[in-house]
Amino acid sequence: MKNQIVVGVVGAGRIGQLHINNMKIMSNIRVKTVADVFADKLKDWFETSGAEKLTKDYQDIMNDPEIDVVFICSSTDTHTMLIKEAAKVKKHIFCEKPISFSDQETLEAYEVVKAAGVKMQVGFNRRFDKNFKKIKNYVKSKKIGDLHILKITSRDPEPPSLDYVARSGGIFMDMAIHDFDMARYVSGSEVEEVYVQGATLVNPDIQKYNDIDTAIITLKFENGAIGVIDNSRQAVYGYDQRVEAFGSQGAISADNETETRVKVFTKDTVEEDKPLYFFLERYNNAYIQEVEDFFDSIEQEKEVLCEFKDGIMAQRIAKAAKKSFEIGKPVKVEKLK
Amino acid sequence: MKNQIVVGVVGAGRIGQLHINNMKIMSNIRVKTVADVFADKLKDWFETSGAEKLTKDYQDIMNDPEIDVVFICSSTDTHTMLIKEAAKVKKHIFCEKPISFSDQETLEAYEVVKAAGVKMQVGFNRRFDKNFKKIKNYVKSKKIGDLHILKITSRDPEPPSLDYVARSGGIFMDMAIHDFDMARYVSGSEVEEVYVQGATLVNPDIQKYNDIDTAIITLKFENGAIGVIDNSRQAVYGYDQRVEAFGSQGAISADNETETRVKVFTKDTVEEDKPLYFFLERYNNAYIQEVEDFFDSIEQEKEVLCEFKDGIMAQRIAKAAKKSFEIGKPVKVEKLK
Amino acid sequence: MKNQIVVGVVGAGRIGQLHINNMKIMSNIRVKTVADVFADKLKDWFETSGAEKLTKDYQDIMNDPEIDVVFICSSTDTHTMLIKEAAKVKKHIFCEKPISFSDQETLEAYEVVKAAGVKMQVGFNRRFDKNFKKIKNYVKSKKIGDLHILKITSRDPEPPSLDYVARSGGIFMDMAIHDFDMARYVSGSEVEEVYVQGATLVNPDIQKYNDIDTAIITLKFENGAIGVIDNSRQAVYGYDQRVEAFGSQGAISADNETETRVKVFTKDTVEEDKPLYFFLERYNNAYIQEVEDFFDSIEQEKEVLCEFKDGIMAQRIAKAAKKSFEIGKPVKVEKLK
Amino acid sequence: MKNQIVVGVVGAGRIGQLHINNMKIMSNIRVKTVADVFADKLKDWFETSGAEKLTKDYQDIMNDPEIDVVFICSSTDTHTMLIKEAAKVKKHIFCEKPISFSDQETLEAYEVVKAAGVKMQVGFNRRFDKNFKKIKNYVKSKKIGDLHILKITSRDPEPPSLDYVARSGGIFMDMAIHDFDMARYVSGSEVEEVYVQGATLVNPDIQKYNDIDTAIITLKFENGAIGVIDNSRQAVYGYDQRVEAFGSQGAISADNETETRVKVFTKDTVEEDKPLYFFLERYNNAYIQEVEDFFDSIEQEKEVLCEFKDGIMAQRIAKAAKKSFEIGKPVKVEKLK
Repeated sequence: MKNQIVVGVVGAGRIGQLHINNMKIMSNIRVKTVADVFADKLKDWFETSGAEKLTKDYQDIMNDPEIDVVFICSSTDTHTMLIKEAAKVKKHIFCEKPISFSDQETLEAYEVVKAAGVKMQVGFNRRFDKNFKKIKNYVKSKKIGDLHILKITSRDPEPPSLDYVARSGGIFMDMAIHDFDMARYVSGSEVEEVYVQGATLVNPDIQKYNDIDTAIITLKFENGAIGVIDNSRQAVYGYDQRVEAFGSQGAISADNETETRVKVFTKDTVEEDKPLYFFLERYNNAYIQEVEDFFDSIEQEKEVLCEFKDGIMAQRIAKAAKKSFEIGKPVKVEKLK
Repeated sequence: MKNQIVVGVVGAGRIGQLHINNMKIMSNIRVKTVADVFADKLKDWFETSGAEKLTKDYQDIMNDPEIDVVFICSSTDTHTMLIKEAAKVKKHIFCEKPISFSDQETLEAYEVVKAAGVKMQVGFNRRFDKNFKKIKNYVKSKKIGDLHILKITSRDPEPPSLDYVARSGGIFMDMAIHDFDMARYVSGSEVEEVYVQGATLVNPDIQKYNDIDTAIITLKFENGAIGVIDNSRQAVYGYDQRVEAFGSQGAISADNETETRVKVFTKDTVEEDKPLYFFLERYNNAYIQEVEDFFDSIEQEKEVLCEFKDGIMAQRIAKAAKKSFEIGKPVKVEKLK
Repeated sequence: MKNQIVVGVVGAGRIGQLHINNMKIMSNIRVKTVADVFADKLKDWFETSGAEKLTKDYQDIMNDPEIDVVFICSSTDTHTMLIKEAAKVKKHIFCEKPISFSDQETLEAYEVVKAAGVKMQVGFNRRFDKNFKKIKNYVKSKKIGDLHILKITSRDPEPPSLDYVARSGGIFMDMAIHDFDMARYVSGSEVEEVYVQGATLVNPDIQKYNDIDTAIITLKFENGAIGVIDNSRQAVYGYDQRVEAFGSQGAISADNETETRVKVFTKDTVEEDKPLYFFLERYNNAYIQEVEDFFDSIEQEKEVLCEFKDGIMAQRIAKAAKKSFEIGKPVKVEKLK
Repeated sequence: MKNQIVVGVVGAGRIGQLHINNMKIMSNIRVKTVADVFADKLKDWFETSGAEKLTKDYQDIMNDPEIDVVFICSSTDTHTMLIKEAAKVKKHIFCEKPISFSDQETLEAYEVVKAAGVKMQVGFNRRFDKNFKKIKNYVKSKKIGDLHILKITSRDPEPPSLDYVARSGGIFMDMAIHDFDMARYVSGSEVEEVYVQGATLVNPDIQKYNDIDTAIITLKFENGAIGVIDNSRQAVYGYDQRVEAFGSQGAISADNETETRVKVFTKDTVEEDKPLYFFLERYNNAYIQEVEDFFDSIEQEKEVLCEFKDGIMAQRIAKAAKKSFEIGKPVKVEKLK
């Protein structure tokens, strides 16, 4: 039987609760402590959470020698501080994306993690989706030959509130960052250059925040392949998440998941299910899988499947994309030394 | 918050373990005791099962006043005895299908349950599959008009061992019984008459047991509709589970579930995923849903969605089917008074 | 270059006009004479038909030594007479289905054709559909192993007029006869026994003609396989024409053809095209192909792909099906000596 | 009945022969004269072509007062000369794409056509494909709301010979020009700006001709929408031709056409047909439709559906795309005054 791993979670918002709920069914995982500044409001949820202790003070986690792993699910501006503190007390770290909005802070945190020799995984959950994993594996194994063109469609079902937009870091850092990671993941190559054709077509008010809601992002990969991402903040028919890899020996593509495989035929139309509407439904299994893989990495001392470097490079592509949109020209992505 | 329901499980074979595992994530359910005659061999499994007590003696469950509900997952020949004992001590009952091989015994058990006033649900899990539930609802709401033709395809991925065949009760009682229940469930009507065209095409040795492995079963419903089931013990491409309802205003059909929505295009072919191979994968969500619905029925004092009558009628259709195959003619299904 | 073949057509109703129109694009075919008792009403159509002569008297065809081939597209009751006359003057024959309503008359005509040594093809157009031909070839080449189950769905978009029903010969001879031929074609085996579960669900008035409009027809093949056909006179969503062959090593199925491959996604639904509505659209290519194959048989002195025997056996299955419906039991199909 | 239209065809290469063959089934069209410099080699083909006269001298067409319409299917460098000559003798013109490689020459020809008052249609056949026409109509009617993103996938099954590449005018003028026209057609808007990310991944020898074989082309439309085209000279699985329009109220997409709707299920895989391999198969119906629509425009004095302006603008986008690839920046498309 596996050894038990003891977990503390900082931040019990939507994503923190999701991870805690998923860990309930993992037989070797014990969620001991949950820290959240709004702990008072979480008491009802905590009752059935399966966790043992609820606190306002995340130091209760850092100072607990029994805890092996810290999940960082608090707001982005607290990430690098928490990473450094956790690494210093030799706890393994699972950190939600993005690591931070600052390249500099991310790199500093990286140095501390490296020095401590702990595992750290970044929360790009889509890497663990069965559809995209299959595409990745086909590309890697050259079953479609050399990659020529990578296409990613990524459209949210509804736009975030303007409040959210204001503090989101913009469409590239908040939304497309998942697609930038997917591009690196599937291609197995770094992105060299990025060009953005963007527009504000969903809600003109977004312009006040120097942001856009619709984009076509062209990518040039180090390995010679080229790619394109199309983003929209609002696909009225649901969460549209597709990937297509085209190569010298064929192509592989993933269509959207739906709730059922039912078709209805009437005199007017033939109907099928819409794509799953929300990311929690669409990526439910991927969220479970990413955490299970993280624990496997710890137990079996393997490398994590989504590491610090992945977090940093996705951020740098986001930064280059933002600049490309501002200047209307292609922009090089800064390399990691 | 919901009140806790305390559960005892008799029989921890494949299906018993499945239910116990699924109950782990249900916040208001406590699996207290598991009884199995082979308890000695189950110790490793029990460690991580989430259950509290493992025993050889099912009386530990019947005699425990704290236990509210008994899951009967033992072999078919023990079902009616256990049902009667559980009902007498006022425990709610979840019983795997078929209730028994004997109409008489089933009816006797029914009387005891009725007298005791406890809930009893029969384990026709497929009713709780999202695909088939959607079809049922469309038929019920007349969105495809009046039902004219119901078609069920039900093929197992591989044939059972001959040992299993010997004690299975035959293809109609063991395998097609799910389809008979599906026919009643989707149509909302009783089956009046059944005709079987059967064959032994997968494994001729099955004939030694007076059994077949391939069948086309025609149904005539009380409401005037007609139906057909096709069964095979071996579909090499996986577990083939489809339903189609055709009516005066349209049709609705459910295709097989697959692991991904990925397509691969090469110079030779376009490939997609095969149907999910095994019933545990295919009906995983349905198994969870059936148990959750059963607990809801108890808590909210609603009727169960798959009751005693459903168990009995599916058995009677199976019996008529067997006779039809033997005599080569259509056979009437005995009505429930 | 191919030699020219000179054609005469008896009967210029819907199906006759269809063949004449299709022959226009065949470079080595010359449609010389069209005979129809209602020739007066056909003058406008004839202008652009590409045919050279329009007459009321089919003897103008029989007596014309230049004519190589007679297409018999007149009403069923004239078929055997015309076949015999054409055969006697050594003309090759293409005859629409069914050959006749009488087994006796059909056999007599067969003797005459055999004695004359001319080619005769029967108009089961669906054999020439690309979808079904592919299924046939897979079954024949054992790519799905031995055939176990054959399923045919065949539903018309709208019921015929009661006038038509009155003189149609009934659903089995008029509509299901195509499916009986398809069953023999795909399986490569004769049908031994047939059982019908039928109903009048589309239009009760059909009962006045001792006919039904909805049927499930079970088939037992000589080679051990079993099969099922489901028929309806009215599928409101279009002409539903599907075939599925299931065998020991896999399955092969053909879905309906549609006008486009377009999908529409809105907040309410995902829609695609309905099946092609009418047999002229659905089987347009098959009609062309069957005639081209017939001419190839003549030129290259090969056997026709749908011969006299096929016509007779489909009729016999239809006859057995009718009897099965009347007596409510399975009925053997009379063999051809 | 319609009046007969008399046609002369200049150039009987692959595309010329295609149009002549398609016109055979059009009842009111008479192909009188075919002119080709290689007429000597075309005698066998001509025999069954349905055309009446074969000549080396295209003046036989221009000087024939009986001829109403000239089809220009010769090499691109002869187009504008032939357009001008045909317009001067008041013949309607169908001209294959591109009109010319020179903007100047195209505009001069345009002036002559305008002055002559004859109809001229440009051969962008894909506009007449049922799939894309349906998308166009949905966009135009605002059924998917305002257009936000337009995506076109256009990949050839195999690369042309280097000889062909040398005189093709490059990937943008030769291949992507169809996609530029499709972008204008579906969006109903002009393209303002274009950016190309290109690569030579299929055959490095193409670089000798300053050409590429793989491209992602970003488009900015006048109406605010944005778009992307991805091109490859080699999709080993067939001719990949898809369009997707995404808007404020939904999306509409067209998948590839296939020969059949057959699926094969085995223990290894589920297979379906590949996309139709060649443009003649894929766009067969579109080629017929474009010519029929052209003749309708003449007879009913309606505007043609693909006019001079469409030819010119597609060329200008191609020119801007070429420049964008050369300078590595987005380039504005020159407007038509």
